[in-house]
Amino acid sequence: MNGAQSLVRTLADSGIALCLGNPGTSEIHFVEALDGEPRMRGVLGLFEGVVTGAADGYARMTGKPAVALLHLGPGFANGIAGLHNARRAGSPVVNIVGDHATSHARYTDAPLSSDIMGICRPVSHWLHATADSRSVAGDGARVVQAARRAPGQIATLLVPADAAWDEARGPAAPLPVAGPAPVESGVVDQVAKALLSGKRTALLMRGAACQRAGVEAAGRIAARTGARVMHDFFSPRVTRGAGMPGIERIPYFAEQIVESLAGLEQLILVGAPPPVTFFAYPGKPSWVTPQGCELITLARPDQDGVGALVALAQALGAKQDAPPVALLRPDLPSGRLTSFAMGQVMTRLLPEGAILADEALTATAGIDPSIIAAPWHDVLYLTGGAIGGALPFATGAALACPDRKVLAVSGDGGAMYTLQSLWTQARENLDVTTVICANRAYAVLHVELARLGAGTGGEKARAMFDLQNPQLDWVKLAGGMGVEASRAETAEDFAAQFASAMSARGPRLIEAVI
Amino acid sequence: MNGAQSLVRTLADSGIALCLGNPGTSEIHFVEALDGEPRMRGVLGLFEGVVTGAADGYARMTGKPAVALLHLGPGFANGIAGLHNARRAGSPVVNIVGDHATSHARYTDAPLSSDIMGICRPVSHWLHATADSRSVAGDGARVVQAARRAPGQIATLLVPADAAWDEARGPAAPLPVAGPAPVESGVVDQVAKALLSGKRTALLMRGAACQRAGVEAAGRIAARTGARVMHDFFSPRVTRGAGMPGIERIPYFAEQIVESLAGLEQLILVGAPPPVTFFAYPGKPSWVTPQGCELITLARPDQDGVGALVALAQALGAKQDAPPVALLRPDLPSGRLTSFAMGQVMTRLLPEGAILADEALTATAGIDPSIIAAPWHDVLYLTGGAIGGALPFATGAALACPDRKVLAVSGDGGAMYTLQSLWTQARENLDVTTVICANRAYAVLHVELARLGAGTGGEKARAMFDLQNPQLDWVKLAGGMGVEASRAETAEDFAAQFASAMSARGPRLIEAVI
Repeated sequence: MNGAQSLVRTLADSGIALCLGNPGTSEIHFVEALDGEPRMRGVLGLFEGVVTGAADGYARMTGKPAVALLHLGPGFANGIAGLHNARRAGSPVVNIVGDHATSHARYTDAPLSSDIMGICRPVSHWLHATADSRSVAGDGARVVQAARRAPGQIATLLVPADAAWDEARGPAAPLPVAGPAPVESGVVDQVAKALLSGKRTALLMRGAACQRAGVEAAGRIAARTGARVMHDFFSPRVTRGAGMPGIERIPYFAEQIVESLAGLEQLILVGAPPPVTFFAYPGKPSWVTPQGCELITLARPDQDGVGALVALAQALGAKQDAPPVALLRPDLPSGRLTSFAMGQVMTRLLPEGAILADEALTATAGIDPSIIAAPWHDVLYLTGGAIGGALPFATGAALACPDRKVLAVSGDGGAMYTLQSLWTQARENLDVTTVICANRAYAVLHVELARLGAGTGGEKARAMFDLQNPQLDWVKLAGGMGVEASRAETAEDFAAQFASAMSARGPRLIEAVI
Repeated sequence: MNGAQSLVRTLADSGIALCLGNPGTSEIHFVEALDGEPRMRGVLGLFEGVVTGAADGYARMTGKPAVALLHLGPGFANGIAGLHNARRAGSPVVNIVGDHATSHARYTDAPLSSDIMGICRPVSHWLHATADSRSVAGDGARVVQAARRAPGQIATLLVPADAAWDEARGPAAPLPVAGPAPVESGVVDQVAKALLSGKRTALLMRGAACQRAGVEAAGRIAARTGARVMHDFFSPRVTRGAGMPGIERIPYFAEQIVESLAGLEQLILVGAPPPVTFFAYPGKPSWVTPQGCELITLARPDQDGVGALVALAQALGAKQDAPPVALLRPDLPSGRLTSFAMGQVMTRLLPEGAILADEALTATAGIDPSIIAAPWHDVLYLTGGAIGGALPFATGAALACPDRKVLAVSGDGGAMYTLQSLWTQARENLDVTTVICANRAYAVLHVELARLGAGTGGEKARAMFDLQNPQLDWVKLAGGMGVEASRAETAEDFAAQFASAMSARGPRLIEAVI
């Protein structure tokens, strides 16, 4: 048994069931070892941004890490943006990075030599370079343990090629994984008291608290106390929809956030940091908690927010469910295709239990008002703001949940970053429908250009934010990667194509020209 | 005048004529300032790997830096692989990275907050964060000076949004740029003596030495002394072809390198490091200079290798040119399309002065034997081994040299990394012909799998190195980005399509099924 085999066996013993990879020469022995491990699936991505983004999507849906198999410093670097989003999501990810053999490391002039530790460090909570083939299995157990530390960490193990190909001692035993810590004693009672104080209060939730058990407990608390229940704009995963208690999304732009939080006297944080704006703007505050509003922490991100919410509901005697969101099945729209019309179609046709990877930015504003009343579904957001997330998230979510329909809704600009995801969806026959909101622009930047007081820009500036000339043809792009695709230019087109996609299985793409 | 305007003016005053960008909200003021600066062209890439790779290609052809305009830590990270190649090429690149406003930096929970210095450092020779709008112009002069330090550096300036939007004092004066240093006195005479010693000797050249003046001087030295003239496998740029002296390329695989260098008693380094293998292999040496072969440095990478070669030729009284490579215009092949047939077609039809971005890896082995006798041309190689270079290099080279035909020859696997380049080529109507060597695999990894003694792999392993199922359709992919494309399945197809591409201007793509 060589080092790679001992590592793969250890990872499988530790519960890892998926290896997403974009391997090269230094990972060949790892890939060979996958052949002998039936418990771990191997899925190829044609760009590392697909691999890390899919690992994030998989982690959000399973709570478990996948392996992202990456090729030296530059390969890891191609995956950093995806890992940045995963880090902000609290997703567990195990990176296995092949490195030059230790004997080769001294040749810093070799083309692929780089400061690999320096490249990996900024996005890794845990980082270690394996010494040799005798220690790689033990390191494998440790990297999984590190990734699973609550709420979820980016754990990176560098494996020199000789640590993979040299003889090893066998697999290492899995290490214990601690679940999220309970909140400190007294906190629940203190928050209960605050909720009963009569002050205007909101719960701001993040992480597991935004999934069913947390949202339902929060709903009971809201029904009992009148508190509002909110999640931040770029939450990792939110379970919502008809039959669930309502949960407000904090808006994107600074002035909208201020408006949405106005009048609050208490903000109770459940796994969430205090709200700040996405960017700073001249003369506008980044800190948006209203003046005089008290911040009270119920649970830190590494603590058991769901358990705390359930205990809090109990402490409050909050047994009555919140009034559920009523199912909305709007009539199918006709005429011009707008984001609002898209939202109506989706709301009408979305199957129960769907997973929605949402990176539509400006288009979401039209979709969100209706889709929140579609049958219950999970939404995955762009937690770290590193665009190009929706297609990889959807890929990973579909690998995690083969029995649920997955929907990626993305702007055309963002989708271009990681369009290679479509090929993996085709190869694995994943049940993902991708909707490209083709506004032919980095539309949010046109908005920002105006908001920043910089006018509408001259021709040269506008060209830097446009995707015109030439127009992207997403039907061809998807077809080039083996994904069936169509273009919708009217609401009727979109309704027909979306209906067809929802009624069939397998990858599909709709270019919605809005 | 705001900070962004003072910066853009300073960059233009310092000789920067091109800004390749993938901007976001934090770069909006910079983009606006471009509007007011007619000396600087703005070119949009839809992914940062296109931007940094094109900046590298531009630098290799002009010797001058372009600006790569990048969006915070994740945006920079997406460009790291391209910067890794640029760094290995000795290419000057000026990165301008928009960052959060300084007032926002304390909010480390903002989605796009990251360890931006940590992300930029590993690939930056020079790295600085601007303090405010009054210092940004001076920093702009310094970042250009740093980038132009011989042989060329990666220089990165972080510009907080408020340093761009606040009032500035005006542009800063350009700073002096020192050319490459002359070699130490005595070195030329010492090398001349070594060359006349009767020992078997080769010149190993890199950087500017591989361009016309250097290659011609090396040719005269070879004609006088019998020395061989070589360049390393992944050279930044080599001028070669009919009418030029011959120059040998060191091969890729360890055992081939050993064979090619066997018997050498002296290796004279001209801007090149001693040769090492690309990867290490079990039981094979990484250090491939033959035992007992003396390494003699004529010029370090930061020194004037061309000047040293010219002086050396003079010291040797080497006035006679090397016998030039004879022009080869092979008959057009017919029948099955192979990489060898592709090479014959290219050799027959390549126009004089073309620029060839070569990332075909396994296919190059068939193309190279003939194309080295095509009319003179420049070849750009994948200096850092971070795949996905050819399409961006070609994009930057075409921006640099609008009057020369540019040819990108890439494997299908590598081209998928940065396929967004095609859109920029279409938008800017660049005269680039892209040839995709569609072998439907990471073919080099199949070779490495066998070479590493790991057998041919099981089904799962082979699938991780295959691009089958589904097959990529490059005609659709290119069409989706506005580039005219065709598929060649026979030698006749390829000849007809290549002839058409060579006789017209503008972007074209040929998918060569081999």
